[in-house]
Amino acid sequence: MGDVQNVKFCQWCGGPTKPGIPEGEERFRAICTSCGKIAYQNPKMVVGCLIEHDNKVLLCKRNIEPSYGLWTLPAGYLEMGESAREGAIRETREEANAEVEVISPFAQLDIPLIGQTYIIFLARLKNPHFSPGPESSECQLFPLHEIPFNSLSFSSMVVTLSLYVEDKKEGGKPKFHYGTISKRPGTSASDIHAYTLDHHMQS
Amino acid sequence: MGDVQNVKFCQWCGGPTKPGIPEGEERFRAICTSCGKIAYQNPKMVVGCLIEHDNKVLLCKRNIEPSYGLWTLPAGYLEMGESAREGAIRETREEANAEVEVISPFAQLDIPLIGQTYIIFLARLKNPHFSPGPESSECQLFPLHEIPFNSLSFSSMVVTLSLYVEDKKEGGKPKFHYGTISKRPGTSASDIHAYTLDHHMQS
Repeated sequence: MGDVQNVKFCQWCGGPTKPGIPEGEERFRAICTSCGKIAYQNPKMVVGCLIEHDNKVLLCKRNIEPSYGLWTLPAGYLEMGESAREGAIRETREEANAEVEVISPFAQLDIPLIGQTYIIFLARLKNPHFSPGPESSECQLFPLHEIPFNSLSFSSMVVTLSLYVEDKKEGGKPKFHYGTISKRPGTSASDIHAYTLDHHMQS
Repeated sequence: MGDVQNVKFCQWCGGPTKPGIPEGEERFRAICTSCGKIAYQNPKMVVGCLIEHDNKVLLCKRNIEPSYGLWTLPAGYLEMGESAREGAIRETREEANAEVEVISPFAQLDIPLIGQTYIIFLARLKNPHFSPGPESSECQLFPLHEIPFNSLSFSSMVVTLSLYVEDKKEGGKPKFHYGTISKRPGTSASDIHAYTLDHHMQS
């Protein structure tokens, strides 16, 4: 019921909400005590690009919290009115001032605990120019064996880049991966390596 | 700015919101005039299963609006706290009283116009039992050449089933498909065949 309690007032009429199970449903929702409307809450998509260039990948050093100073793929929340592909291109433009062409879907990684789904595309630079946008302090191309796995920002980035490195080692073209990222019980929230990748499937 | 105007009051404090562009951002958001919090709105994921059984696929006839009386794959909104895979299994249980095992990711289809992303998995029945749940009036296995393409519920279902039939015709194992579904300008919203599938990529 945790998420339901975040919604204390109705977005449509401003009336106070109360947790309840709507008729025909099985879950608690925030229901408006005044107009009766239900505030549904759903997981969010984070979209980004894994950019290949001369056998290197492009990473951005975060200039914002969380994970300030750590390395990430350009990625961010999908916005209303755009496709995941468009969102991933936009985030790359914003964080790395780079223009990319999306090549193929690479990974969907769900993190149910925090209500996020990462959707990552393989992409290539349309031209060799990139530079840090406002949310980055640095952008750099890393050869695969130099990817800073101990200075990455999020578990989702560790998983994405690990899967990519494995696919490349096997030769052939990268696959599409689906999986769920779970925190290992009893480990610190800040330890991004304390995860399990469950239900990993590939196409 | 359409989506911003849906949020008239702050969910945290109940204060009235006003559309504005937060510092460091570029988009209009609903910002609370009382506590200053921003109400972000993001696209939602619809998750479902394409169930293969004896060279047939399982469809459900909708017993609810929209698209009452038309055929669909079991699918619905992803809930907080569950993975896309878990959501697809739950929806199949709810709509078809069927227990399935998910085999592989099959398609991600974005519909930016309505802020939805369909995520469809291939699945198989754990046992041969299924029957309509409360939201269905009928559940039926269809051989591929008998899929009721003229009585499907949504464009996303037309696209998913068309891609599946094509993959099966080519032989080999089905691929993973990404694409964007756009309404063809000047066509009726109810004409589910008046779409284009853009940026189709497969892995």
